[in-house]
Amino acid sequence: MARFEPKNPDFRAVATATFARQQAMRTLGISIARLEPGEVDLSMPYSHHFSQQNGFVHAGIITAGLDNACGIAAFTLMPAGCDILTVEFKTNLLAPAKGARFAFRAQVIRPGRTLTVCEARAFSETDGAEILVATMTGTLMALPQRAGH
Amino acid sequence: MARFEPKNPDFRAVATATFARQQAMRTLGISIARLEPGEVDLSMPYSHHFSQQNGFVHAGIITAGLDNACGIAAFTLMPAGCDILTVEFKTNLLAPAKGARFAFRAQVIRPGRTLTVCEARAFSETDGAEILVATMTGTLMALPQRAGH
Amino acid sequence: MARFEPKNPDFRAVATATFARQQAMRTLGISIARLEPGEVDLSMPYSHHFSQQNGFVHAGIITAGLDNACGIAAFTLMPAGCDILTVEFKTNLLAPAKGARFAFRAQVIRPGRTLTVCEARAFSETDGAEILVATMTGTLMALPQRAGH
Amino acid sequence: MARFEPKNPDFRAVATATFARQQAMRTLGISIARLEPGEVDLSMPYSHHFSQQNGFVHAGIITAGLDNACGIAAFTLMPAGCDILTVEFKTNLLAPAKGARFAFRAQVIRPGRTLTVCEARAFSETDGAEILVATMTGTLMALPQRAGH
Repeated sequence: MARFEPKNPDFRAVATATFARQQAMRTLGISIARLEPGEVDLSMPYSHHFSQQNGFVHAGIITAGLDNACGIAAFTLMPAGCDILTVEFKTNLLAPAKGARFAFRAQVIRPGRTLTVCEARAFSETDGAEILVATMTGTLMALPQRAGH
Repeated sequence: MARFEPKNPDFRAVATATFARQQAMRTLGISIARLEPGEVDLSMPYSHHFSQQNGFVHAGIITAGLDNACGIAAFTLMPAGCDILTVEFKTNLLAPAKGARFAFRAQVIRPGRTLTVCEARAFSETDGAEILVATMTGTLMALPQRAGH
Repeated sequence: MARFEPKNPDFRAVATATFARQQAMRTLGISIARLEPGEVDLSMPYSHHFSQQNGFVHAGIITAGLDNACGIAAFTLMPAGCDILTVEFKTNLLAPAKGARFAFRAQVIRPGRTLTVCEARAFSETDGAEILVATMTGTLMALPQRAGH
Repeated sequence: MARFEPKNPDFRAVATATFARQQAMRTLGISIARLEPGEVDLSMPYSHHFSQQNGFVHAGIITAGLDNACGIAAFTLMPAGCDILTVEFKTNLLAPAKGARFAFRAQVIRPGRTLTVCEARAFSETDGAEILVATMTGTLMALPQRAGH
């Protein structure tokens, strides 16, 4: 049930390569769990290196995962030869980010030539149970590569 | 010109101790540069460990700095014995986060018994010049310590 | 498939009465189309009195509908004797608000004793077709009646 | 102390004419109080026609004023022959919107060829005193006239 038709037939390879160039994702241990046109799931293990004062994952780190999920989801629908840029996002923190793993699931809700809007949700996973810990709405911008914005 | 009167005379010690318990801040190399009632400046050196695909600091990491600045700014005005929680925030990314250092400056714009609203700005610093790279508006919540929310 | 259990068995009467006391809703011609625990649909006819420079409904008016839908959805889950207050919201405008009628559909995504988070979508309706024109994420606060905040 | 240089020397006439074509502004009684490159103040009298359940101005109406202030502020810096579109905004409600008049003050914080980011504040005015009632951060988009987006 593909809701979106990718403009770039190599969208998987291009999105995966762009993700791989993000040193921040490697440092945070975030990997791609699922990648479809306009949809992506990322996965991150808990690390106390990124905790806040109560031992939960810091809201900024959860946001890094959500933002990246939005960016990759938007990127899958862009034509070849684009770079992508986050314009803005909004995050609501709904529950403490405690758990063994975290999932970041994003989908495009409005693709556009210049701007794409995505929604994403972060879940904590412990003993098979999932809890919604945060939401994001984000706006992403397509840029011709090497151009400023 | 203190705009706010702290309820807790030990606000500096308490805010500094809470900050120090955040392992994420240590991992990111973020430190407190200035701390006044309702205002805080944080500082972070560039690290390629937290870069995105073009070598700039990842938007989520910039957000972690902004969110923490908001949290500490709000925390300085809270009574003793409170914990603090981020309810939500909104970030606009205005310029690429490139530079040798980054400053995160937050101030309370409306303190409240339960909810406090803060604004923060992130600047990149290179060769003495500062560029505004991102803004945040955030809502923080005071919690009696050890209580759920 | 009731996802939420209302605390106030009279939630319909209370929510409807609170809605009816909002003169702004009457002026804008907005009415309740559906009301369930944690969910509400509002409906608004097009009026050129609330248009922007191209004849579409003004983004602020669309926001008034979305915000009110969030408020009523949150209110259905609150205990008797509460007042409700919008803390903040974020709106993305996705398509021009043109059409004969508009639907504002909100649902609670995290109910809380103090804070409730809702998501809402605005659709334009013309000749039986629906187009998503805007989204909102909003945070609402329960207040004991007659108390300040 | 002009912080921004307008690209269109007729920016006042064009911004004023665009504002005048917004029927919603007329219906709400909103007028331009001050107009400079990248900055605008709007003014609105209280009307119980736009009140919520406690008699205060509805948050959506406050948002309409804030959004319009952002739009006009951004518009003053755009080249001739552009139309303007709100991409998204975020509003925090800080105090009840009660008072005889309301001021909406916006300024551009980052102008761009395609996207412009503005911040705005809403104040209530009663007996010469001003209270900050709401804030907005908004993203506006320049469009060649008559083109879709």
